[in-house]
Amino acid sequence: MNLTLSKTINRPIWLADDGQTVQIIDQRRLPHELVIVDLNRVDDVITAIQEMYVRGAPLIGVTGAYGVYIAARQALDHPQPQTEFEILCQRIEDARPTAVNLRWAVQRLLAGVQSLPADKIIEKAKGMAAEIAEEEVHNCHRIGQHGHQMLRDLHQAKGGQAPLNILTHCNAGWLACVEYGTATAPVYAAAREGLPVHVWVDETRPLNQGARLTAWELGQAKVPHTVITDNAGGHLMQHGMVDVVIVGTDRTTHTGDVANKIGTYLKALAARDNQIPFYVALPSSTFDWQLTDGIAQIPIELRNPEEVHMIEGWDQDKAARVRITPTTSQAANYAFDVTPARLVTGFITERGICGPSKTDILELFPEHA
Amino acid sequence: MNLTLSKTINRPIWLADDGQTVQIIDQRRLPHELVIVDLNRVDDVITAIQEMYVRGAPLIGVTGAYGVYIAARQALDHPQPQTEFEILCQRIEDARPTAVNLRWAVQRLLAGVQSLPADKIIEKAKGMAAEIAEEEVHNCHRIGQHGHQMLRDLHQAKGGQAPLNILTHCNAGWLACVEYGTATAPVYAAAREGLPVHVWVDETRPLNQGARLTAWELGQAKVPHTVITDNAGGHLMQHGMVDVVIVGTDRTTHTGDVANKIGTYLKALAARDNQIPFYVALPSSTFDWQLTDGIAQIPIELRNPEEVHMIEGWDQDKAARVRITPTTSQAANYAFDVTPARLVTGFITERGICGPSKTDILELFPEHA
Repeated sequence: MNLTLSKTINRPIWLADDGQTVQIIDQRRLPHELVIVDLNRVDDVITAIQEMYVRGAPLIGVTGAYGVYIAARQALDHPQPQTEFEILCQRIEDARPTAVNLRWAVQRLLAGVQSLPADKIIEKAKGMAAEIAEEEVHNCHRIGQHGHQMLRDLHQAKGGQAPLNILTHCNAGWLACVEYGTATAPVYAAAREGLPVHVWVDETRPLNQGARLTAWELGQAKVPHTVITDNAGGHLMQHGMVDVVIVGTDRTTHTGDVANKIGTYLKALAARDNQIPFYVALPSSTFDWQLTDGIAQIPIELRNPEEVHMIEGWDQDKAARVRITPTTSQAANYAFDVTPARLVTGFITERGICGPSKTDILELFPEHA
Repeated sequence: MNLTLSKTINRPIWLADDGQTVQIIDQRRLPHELVIVDLNRVDDVITAIQEMYVRGAPLIGVTGAYGVYIAARQALDHPQPQTEFEILCQRIEDARPTAVNLRWAVQRLLAGVQSLPADKIIEKAKGMAAEIAEEEVHNCHRIGQHGHQMLRDLHQAKGGQAPLNILTHCNAGWLACVEYGTATAPVYAAAREGLPVHVWVDETRPLNQGARLTAWELGQAKVPHTVITDNAGGHLMQHGMVDVVIVGTDRTTHTGDVANKIGTYLKALAARDNQIPFYVALPSSTFDWQLTDGIAQIPIELRNPEEVHMIEGWDQDKAARVRITPTTSQAANYAFDVTPARLVTGFITERGICGPSKTDILELFPEHA
């Protein structure tokens, strides 16, 4: 009933053997089915992003970059290719509001191709999209190294014996990125080096990315883990069962406010109330270098209430959806919340770990000062 | 697809027309099916409590009281009725560990019947169980009046125009009590008097008592409400969309620490972080007059992990369960957490509202000093 991936699929996005077709895993069907989807038109890209076939800030960015490549191809068939290309790219950029990587990736590609003739844009965009994917792999690898050091230190401080208990929310694993993940990269690196770790996996309602994706990823990597409801983390922290929280982020202001999957803020509050370190792992592509007040300024996506009314799962050998609310009740579905900088212990980036302040962040990334 | 109750069923427990059979609603099947279950043997009572056909501290207490009545009948068939009666009552008392009302009700009945001959115990136990039920109805009614006053004051302070937004977690409605509810009693009282209210209903994983029961209750009473994931409350509070939190409790120490459905603590932290009042509504039967440190001393039930792996809901016109986790992952299912007194604004009791301290609680209930 659960999928075990072959060694050949270790990324959530890639170019098919024809060197042209962008392929993704439809993550809505994991962990029970491996469905691979071709992205041939910009509408496919937008659907994949909006309907969350792909999700996670770094992966949304890479998908957006490949979307620009697809837009360049598609625009060629249009009487006004340049205008059409720009319209298509804008539509991709607007597909989801919260993750900053989407805008960052699309704008980077647009800047890279702007002086080129239409027929050169396609190859350049494809090359740049691949480049962003490789950069994110490199960034996640580095995040893993820096975070592993932090986990090793915590384990030493704990006495070096019992497993280190890490709590995470949502999925910031390789499925959300390209390889390694952000929040999970330190865990994979630590486990590979023999550090005893155990992960508490928040199920992450409404779409259960924790229960479905993070649990499955950790299982594939044979990392000990336990799925819990989103309600449980505070109790575990009160009773010394969590040593550190690590989450990813969809957008973090350069002042340190963290937009991430709805519910992250509640875990940050509980961590603070119990003096447990709360880390956010992110590649620098997820920093927003403009916004200064995350709670007031980061747009929070309000998704379809059906995602709250209905839960998707598995019934014997087939996918199934059940309704959990009365049909007479309405629901609201805010997709993200913002954890203020004051609740963050540190950011684990590709360049090292820094404190949750503009000064500390810009010290690591002075080119944005 | 959703049930609308006839006027004749307005309590979750009652005596059948024969005056002997205890009947309950199997709340696991709400809001989609009304299944009425007869409790004839102590094993039925224990199953109903453990499997959560009935739930909510006051209702567990009343069910336990009727359980003593059933135990008295059943013990008569035993060669050693007195010993058997005590064993059966102990088994009822141990059916669930966290809600203090169960122990309170069973011990109150045992004290009331202890000097009686075996053949008199039955009628006395039945009378005392009915008495506890009526007391809880009265208590909930009074909680509603005191809480309504508090809501009216908050609405005035808000300017008296826009609806007052109340967030609640789990179900502390009439289904959890006998009538009115605890946390919902002020809401029903306010709505009846024309105060504009809107309730944010936490779905309350893993068993979704909010999405299933509270939403259904409020819908039946035509109180405006919106179901949200357990993750969403912090975001709503950050953005001024919650005016007050009211929850019930399964056990509250007389020093003010509140055991309630897992996840309550996270909402209390968010309320404090956003200066939103956080009230706990309870009849005095839910106070624990012995324990002084809720986090250290209140036993937290660890339930079957299947409740996390599987979600029950409705598929077209039939009940259905779906699995949401990989079969290779384990899960943990802590049923309650403890909110420390320092995060509570006040307790709404049948005698009025008091602050979260031993002094204030004992001032209202001096007979326990």
